[in-house]
Amino acid sequence: MQTKRVNAEMLKNIKGYENRQAYNAPYSSLTGDDKVNSDSSNIKEQVRRDKLVSSLREAIEKCEIKDGMTISFHHHFRAGDKLLMQVVDILAEMGIKNLRIAASSLTSAHNGLVAHIENGVVNRIETSGLRGKLAQAVSEGVLEYPAVIRSHGGRARAITSGDLKIDVAFLAASSADCMGNANGVKGKSICGSMGYAKVDAAHAKKVVVVTDTLVPYPNFPQSIPQTQVDYVCVVDEVGDPSGIMSGATRFTNNPKELLMAKRVVEVMKASGLFVDGFSMQTGSGGAALAVTRFVKDEILKRDIKLSYALGGITAPMVDLLENGLVDQLFDTQSFDLTAAESVGRNEKHVEVSADFYASIGNKSAAVNKLDFVILSALEIDTDFNVNVISGSDGVIRAASGGHSDTAAMAKMSILTAPLTRGRLSTIIDKVTTVVTPGSTVDVVVTDYGVIVNPTRTDLIERFSKARIQMLTMEEARAMATRLLGTPKDIEFTDEVVAVVEYRDGSIIDTIKKVK
Amino acid sequence: MQTKRVNAEMLKNIKGYENRQAYNAPYSSLTGDDKVNSDSSNIKEQVRRDKLVSSLREAIEKCEIKDGMTISFHHHFRAGDKLLMQVVDILAEMGIKNLRIAASSLTSAHNGLVAHIENGVVNRIETSGLRGKLAQAVSEGVLEYPAVIRSHGGRARAITSGDLKIDVAFLAASSADCMGNANGVKGKSICGSMGYAKVDAAHAKKVVVVTDTLVPYPNFPQSIPQTQVDYVCVVDEVGDPSGIMSGATRFTNNPKELLMAKRVVEVMKASGLFVDGFSMQTGSGGAALAVTRFVKDEILKRDIKLSYALGGITAPMVDLLENGLVDQLFDTQSFDLTAAESVGRNEKHVEVSADFYASIGNKSAAVNKLDFVILSALEIDTDFNVNVISGSDGVIRAASGGHSDTAAMAKMSILTAPLTRGRLSTIIDKVTTVVTPGSTVDVVVTDYGVIVNPTRTDLIERFSKARIQMLTMEEARAMATRLLGTPKDIEFTDEVVAVVEYRDGSIIDTIKKVK
Repeated sequence: MQTKRVNAEMLKNIKGYENRQAYNAPYSSLTGDDKVNSDSSNIKEQVRRDKLVSSLREAIEKCEIKDGMTISFHHHFRAGDKLLMQVVDILAEMGIKNLRIAASSLTSAHNGLVAHIENGVVNRIETSGLRGKLAQAVSEGVLEYPAVIRSHGGRARAITSGDLKIDVAFLAASSADCMGNANGVKGKSICGSMGYAKVDAAHAKKVVVVTDTLVPYPNFPQSIPQTQVDYVCVVDEVGDPSGIMSGATRFTNNPKELLMAKRVVEVMKASGLFVDGFSMQTGSGGAALAVTRFVKDEILKRDIKLSYALGGITAPMVDLLENGLVDQLFDTQSFDLTAAESVGRNEKHVEVSADFYASIGNKSAAVNKLDFVILSALEIDTDFNVNVISGSDGVIRAASGGHSDTAAMAKMSILTAPLTRGRLSTIIDKVTTVVTPGSTVDVVVTDYGVIVNPTRTDLIERFSKARIQMLTMEEARAMATRLLGTPKDIEFTDEVVAVVEYRDGSIIDTIKKVK
Repeated sequence: MQTKRVNAEMLKNIKGYENRQAYNAPYSSLTGDDKVNSDSSNIKEQVRRDKLVSSLREAIEKCEIKDGMTISFHHHFRAGDKLLMQVVDILAEMGIKNLRIAASSLTSAHNGLVAHIENGVVNRIETSGLRGKLAQAVSEGVLEYPAVIRSHGGRARAITSGDLKIDVAFLAASSADCMGNANGVKGKSICGSMGYAKVDAAHAKKVVVVTDTLVPYPNFPQSIPQTQVDYVCVVDEVGDPSGIMSGATRFTNNPKELLMAKRVVEVMKASGLFVDGFSMQTGSGGAALAVTRFVKDEILKRDIKLSYALGGITAPMVDLLENGLVDQLFDTQSFDLTAAESVGRNEKHVEVSADFYASIGNKSAAVNKLDFVILSALEIDTDFNVNVISGSDGVIRAASGGHSDTAAMAKMSILTAPLTRGRLSTIIDKVTTVVTPGSTVDVVVTDYGVIVNPTRTDLIERFSKARIQMLTMEEARAMATRLLGTPKDIEFTDEVVAVVEYRDGSIIDTIKKVK
């Protein structure tokens, strides 16, 4: 059939079109698995109408993973993740070396990575957090390159800016169709929001969706759209939903935590920001979660409601939504099964990407409109700097999360921490590792009183009027010393085992090998 | 406060981090309107928490539009658009010259552009379609550079690939909040889906959302997310919803069109593809719309349903959805107010971007799973090539739309066209302009019988068994000649006034200046 009316010679004479290609055939630009031979009869039969592969190994082979490449994963299943180790085990069998693992976070499900680091399959890790044996091994210097610790917003920025280039993203989904439309809210292994995975899917060179529940086309909702997916692979089980609840999220009946939670609501009320339409995020610490319950009592009393709540979403937040006490939930990660089910059911419980949630690399993230964020801390120093990543022994043990992202942007960032934990002081002279800079921390609520950042003279004035019991950071530090004495400094070597990136990509601290 | 623990010297010794920046201050990477002075007290007060500007002129000034830049618009309001001319009028007042207008399409609302082309404000146009006085002027050679005609999928590909770089996108939205979260389904001037605008928002350097209905933060749904928006501007009226209905969409009681619509359903039934879970798109021609009604009768009779329907969505499609006869509607453009209202109300009526709809530049668009597409045509030639852009007088008069995108990917593309229109033959030796190549056209349904592309021997066999009245293209051509005689060739000059891009970015045809 005669369709060619334009040739290269003709294009030379068309202003602005001198170097363009003339039409050749309808599918001539397609390559790889999408290639179609336009000369054959019934070319329509050749169009790729599903992306299913028969095994994870086949997906890996089709993605042509080579030594030194970067592969990415999400941690929406938290300790229940069953994908990452399967993929790395296969890559090890295939003899691949020097991989970079770029996960949104790593948990106890990934202790098996230690052996793969030792045998050279993996030599770099970029993540929000490290726990358990893997964290211990990294702290002891097992990696060839230092690990990179990023906040959730920082990871999104790194991916969208190209600082972190992903060759292949392996994305566990509780359901998917044959073209790759995928979500975390249908199927047998739900994880709720796929907010971290959305960023990987949009930017990775190759994307493999892995599910244990294949559904008819078109799947709904499309958390990951088919436009971003290369292959779909069905496995027996992608993750254990009960693993979502493990780790940081728990309810408290600890009187010290309940006391601090009540103090948090007191400072919120005294701040001038506790008015109709305010917004908040709570972290996943025990006191932080209790805050949501106390906030509910207060807003009912005042007959006001929240505009939105943000972040890792928990059951108390869903309760607010279902009672009409908040307009929308922005969910980048469902912290429990109540949240995971709600995000699949309630249109005002909105799944958002980590980019929308917290990146400094876009034109404004949801954190930019926050009134309050309530966060926990492992250590806070007299400059208000916060450590949420390393233990008092200097060993990595937790995650950066959205801590520095929300602290920077909320109108009032509230840290909750008991003055002492067992024989350890929380308020110290110099935090082991800086994750969140002190200039972005406004208020520290302890069991001994409230510490306000001295730059926030406005808050000091308001809190005085409200007769909130305040103390200075120096007073708090002295009190901790009286209770526990001066702690011994941790001994480190000079070897850097991890770098901590701030949300803008700059390096805010390093973590050194413990002695 | 002391936070700096890392300096450039230290980074030099960290493997893989030798050239990175050390942390300076929490907001030091922010620029422009987002700039924050970290040294001041209560830096939180400086965080930009709304993007409102007081006028369209202020938005334009803040975007620093210069001579030769590219500004983009969507055409979801079709003939009711009230934004494009406002913006160009202001730019003309400001003395800006040589602008490139990259609109998803242009309508009778944009006749005023002719004057701005004549006075040098605009010298390039990229669009899916041109109509009325503007089309006439372009056909007469008013533009300095040839106009670029792209399909809806082709435009998305051009934008995502960087072939079409947009400096500033001006996006009319029926509602928006102060951070730029915007949609077309709330407010006083709804347009429904913002599927074209989504692509511009994701890729333009600067994005201005223009609305006549400012709503409290956070707006829902977020068709355009705040992460992509620089400024929000409130005007009196962004568009006239009644304009959506104008132009191509209309119901028919023309007996010839009804006859063709019935024939279309006959060939669909005989194709082997008319089974439970099939998918379809209809264009906006009269016969094509009637098809949806006849399809409804057939699927009710057979007790089957569609998996999805695609494209410009119309009231008959919404009727299928509301009766449970289709699982999902993928809506890149709402063709009437019934569709515009439904997409804001029914979660299974899914707003999709032009990229998701039809681009060849992603990892598979919705068109890739189509079973049937029903399309109209201005001219079809004996090689099955289709013209939907220029009239028999050679003057541009319509739009490329999703024609070539869907024809290429649907398992069976069905063109409907009467053999003659008044004194003009539809089947001719050589179409005036090729928009859709003949090798992607499977079946042509005319009022005199069905013409099957000879490469589709499978369909010829099926249709024979089903006793469908077929004729060859040559027979159809001869019949048209007997009825009307041989038409006179149009006379063109050698000057190219427009290039027609195929969906992969290659040039499939040019349109020349009429004599």
